[in-house]
Amino acid sequence: MTTTPNRTARERWRRIIFDHDTAAGRAFDVALIVAILSSVVVMMFDSLPGLSPQAHALLRRLEWFFTILFTVEYLMRLWCAVHPAQYARSFFGIVDLLATLPTYVSLLFPGGRFLALVRVLRVMRVFRILKLTEYVEGAGILMQALKASRHKITVFIFTVITLVAVVGSLMFLVEGPEAGFTSIPMSMYWAIVTLTTVGYGDIAPVTVAGRLLASVLMVLGYGIIAVPTGIMTIEIQKATNAMSLPRAVTCAGCGRADHDRDAEFCKRCGQHLPPRDAL
Amino acid sequence: MTTTPNRTARERWRRIIFDHDTAAGRAFDVALIVAILSSVVVMMFDSLPGLSPQAHALLRRLEWFFTILFTVEYLMRLWCAVHPAQYARSFFGIVDLLATLPTYVSLLFPGGRFLALVRVLRVMRVFRILKLTEYVEGAGILMQALKASRHKITVFIFTVITLVAVVGSLMFLVEGPEAGFTSIPMSMYWAIVTLTTVGYGDIAPVTVAGRLLASVLMVLGYGIIAVPTGIMTIEIQKATNAMSLPRAVTCAGCGRADHDRDAEFCKRCGQHLPPRDAL
Amino acid sequence: MTTTPNRTARERWRRIIFDHDTAAGRAFDVALIVAILSSVVVMMFDSLPGLSPQAHALLRRLEWFFTILFTVEYLMRLWCAVHPAQYARSFFGIVDLLATLPTYVSLLFPGGRFLALVRVLRVMRVFRILKLTEYVEGAGILMQALKASRHKITVFIFTVITLVAVVGSLMFLVEGPEAGFTSIPMSMYWAIVTLTTVGYGDIAPVTVAGRLLASVLMVLGYGIIAVPTGIMTIEIQKATNAMSLPRAVTCAGCGRADHDRDAEFCKRCGQHLPPRDAL
Amino acid sequence: MTTTPNRTARERWRRIIFDHDTAAGRAFDVALIVAILSSVVVMMFDSLPGLSPQAHALLRRLEWFFTILFTVEYLMRLWCAVHPAQYARSFFGIVDLLATLPTYVSLLFPGGRFLALVRVLRVMRVFRILKLTEYVEGAGILMQALKASRHKITVFIFTVITLVAVVGSLMFLVEGPEAGFTSIPMSMYWAIVTLTTVGYGDIAPVTVAGRLLASVLMVLGYGIIAVPTGIMTIEIQKATNAMSLPRAVTCAGCGRADHDRDAEFCKRCGQHLPPRDAL
Repeated sequence: MTTTPNRTARERWRRIIFDHDTAAGRAFDVALIVAILSSVVVMMFDSLPGLSPQAHALLRRLEWFFTILFTVEYLMRLWCAVHPAQYARSFFGIVDLLATLPTYVSLLFPGGRFLALVRVLRVMRVFRILKLTEYVEGAGILMQALKASRHKITVFIFTVITLVAVVGSLMFLVEGPEAGFTSIPMSMYWAIVTLTTVGYGDIAPVTVAGRLLASVLMVLGYGIIAVPTGIMTIEIQKATNAMSLPRAVTCAGCGRADHDRDAEFCKRCGQHLPPRDAL
Repeated sequence: MTTTPNRTARERWRRIIFDHDTAAGRAFDVALIVAILSSVVVMMFDSLPGLSPQAHALLRRLEWFFTILFTVEYLMRLWCAVHPAQYARSFFGIVDLLATLPTYVSLLFPGGRFLALVRVLRVMRVFRILKLTEYVEGAGILMQALKASRHKITVFIFTVITLVAVVGSLMFLVEGPEAGFTSIPMSMYWAIVTLTTVGYGDIAPVTVAGRLLASVLMVLGYGIIAVPTGIMTIEIQKATNAMSLPRAVTCAGCGRADHDRDAEFCKRCGQHLPPRDAL
Repeated sequence: MTTTPNRTARERWRRIIFDHDTAAGRAFDVALIVAILSSVVVMMFDSLPGLSPQAHALLRRLEWFFTILFTVEYLMRLWCAVHPAQYARSFFGIVDLLATLPTYVSLLFPGGRFLALVRVLRVMRVFRILKLTEYVEGAGILMQALKASRHKITVFIFTVITLVAVVGSLMFLVEGPEAGFTSIPMSMYWAIVTLTTVGYGDIAPVTVAGRLLASVLMVLGYGIIAVPTGIMTIEIQKATNAMSLPRAVTCAGCGRADHDRDAEFCKRCGQHLPPRDAL
Repeated sequence: MTTTPNRTARERWRRIIFDHDTAAGRAFDVALIVAILSSVVVMMFDSLPGLSPQAHALLRRLEWFFTILFTVEYLMRLWCAVHPAQYARSFFGIVDLLATLPTYVSLLFPGGRFLALVRVLRVMRVFRILKLTEYVEGAGILMQALKASRHKITVFIFTVITLVAVVGSLMFLVEGPEAGFTSIPMSMYWAIVTLTTVGYGDIAPVTVAGRLLASVLMVLGYGIIAVPTGIMTIEIQKATNAMSLPRAVTCAGCGRADHDRDAEFCKRCGQHLPPRDAL
């Protein structure tokens, strides 16, 4: 009952573009991912200083090639989507549009730097390709864990901010402007660089008191990373357990409801079950 | 039974200022958080070097505006608190007072740098706004996990201190003062910077033996972070499990005692249950 | 039934070279690990600048000594393996061959730097020595945990790449080329250095906006390490639980099947059980 | 039955010096910890460059004061220990001896730097004070977790070493000696500094290929910390569960065996139970 012989071209294209479970659909996905990554690489090369005019012209032509490709793809998605307006207003619909617009805008306004920034959002289109069941489940578990731990994480972040503000101010008092601690915001920037164990070294304490205070902050920063890690571990475990419960969907044909999470067809009557991630 | 029509102004203000579950109370919270963060930003700008006299005067006037605002707020809290003396001696009562005092003190003593430090404690007032049930629970779990793991954490910290003392002394022996290892305390400062993976690079080994020793310390520092992380994860899990037990409160109306943790009313007779965080 | 008196020399050597449970086999393992590590140390010394011609000649002679030793070992393994062709095509067979070839090739082509690279693969031969039951189990648990978490890890890595691309581009916009942000790829390199908390400090933001953005990236990088850690913890736990189940092997002698995981002989009839890692 | 009225002076001193559960014993512990930390601080100050001769003489006298104090303490421990020879050969017996010897040796040989190193081992004596039940339990859980995870940790460390060797050699090939990659050992030092996210910045890649390779190493280093963390979390959990089982000790008086872990007396007949950490 899954293959309908007399499908229209629109339906056939929809399966290729939006689905990932046919050979044609997978080929389309691979081609799209190559195009996306290539266009991002082209954009990055374009920002390199000291390019010859020829190289610049070539990259410009490649950019137009990818823009037209993505424009065609966007129009086809609009044409064959079940609800075109809904697609256009969805997250990926907007990302798809933003992947093409900047190049056209650059004909009118030459502000290259800012447009490059919008174009880099193309990278996010790769996530669409990951819309296979396993990835959706993996992302779902991570999202649920983040959502469940938001209150604890908020408490943690406010504690970190308070720590940074207090230590930053103390350090401004202790160290002079010679060592780089020229103001409280600058001291707080140093406190963040130190607490997160990044440690650029552009600003570093030079007095004994400053180094003592910095040592305490370093050990604290080294230790308190344990807190969000512990929180996330517990929440990922909870979300994983919740995911392994049977799927709460009722078959329209026979009424059976205890299907596995990855079931696509009813195990008793073979009826196609409603999709799990019904966008 | 929850709304009492003929409340006094004091009672009405108490609900606005101390509670977070009415529209007016939430609006007050939002206004307060904006005022707190603005006053901290003003204080930070004030520490920037190279400000024009006009900018300085403006920031000074803003500082006085926030100080008077917080003073009025403090006096209102004192007036409408159930037990004013108890509030004044509580943690947040002292923080509220410290948020206003420095500016008045600056009229008498001009020591700006040190007073800025006291004023930065205002950031901590943000925690008051987080006194919603979910945040209190999140903070409670974290506090309980920290408390339960204090013996293991103490053992861990003493091991780290011993490691830092031994490696710092060894490094002082191995590297000369040319590389920055001028004394044992300085070598220990370097050992902390390295063990916590901060790595400023202001002091770094240059001899072969020193780099070998540093490599061992780095791998150790990279690895032993696993220990507090493991401890915290286990303790957060235990604290989370303990939190999910039903609430041990007995309804004054019907005597029923098996209420959910977030229950505010008795599920059988609708009687208002005593507040959970009765402070 | 385990010791066969009239074994051939080939069988005796096979037990010494491939097995780890006899005194001779363990002695062979220790000798091999010493030879491997010595040869790697020799190779490293050889790359040191400013060596005297005598030292160079000595290291060269030592290199030939180890190469001939490993060649003899390789030929003996080929000779006494149960399936020589299978061994030659196995992972360790190829590593063993690559451990000897570069020195012979250097007679024909003098490209020393590249050959040193191939020779460093000798380090991997150490893993063969770890083929004791406990290590195989440890490695097995880690491999299974990595395999089970590949979908979540992929989602995580793509999120990190997107974050790096977006923040890198933003930073290229915000900071000028004076601070080192000369192109988008360079800004993305900085974003990776910062997000992973490495923080070399060769490129660092200097403007206020850049430092604000960098602070956000640092806190994010500091926090999101919790995600893969949480994932790995859950998967290692699952894999550990799965490993502690009884071993699914049936004794050829009596048919009993509920043996412990580390059982080498049937606990009822003493028959030798088939090896667990039959390769 | 616990207090024996007619104890000898030796027994009374033993309780003060070796036990931690009497008022006198606790006072002794506090005095000792103050003396240990003071002597370490004195030693550190002594290593500071540019001290006046007076300061140096004062520190020297303080050092002799602490040395004589620790010598007296050592002799008293020898005198009142149950088995003096056993104490002298125990770990803490040797540490106690090493805390006093270097100062006497310095009268004969003036090699100050090396002796300072031996003296720093005094810090380890602090661990003796932590010999309270809760700390012993905390340390026991950590030791057991480390012991249980040694096979997985060994596999992990060898993987890291192989990764460092391979990436270090590759980097030596890719980057020239100008960027600091002067030899394979130096490149491996850089690889460790990068993989552990320390990132001094004294050696950093400058070519495009080098930075690409470094980025991969950073992301790997950032991610694989999840592996030991996951291992430790599981093992700490197992060790914690094992610790919470009842104590397997049989009362000599009534034969009852199900005592709590921290029980010191039999809960039925009040008989003193044998000490848990019968050293």
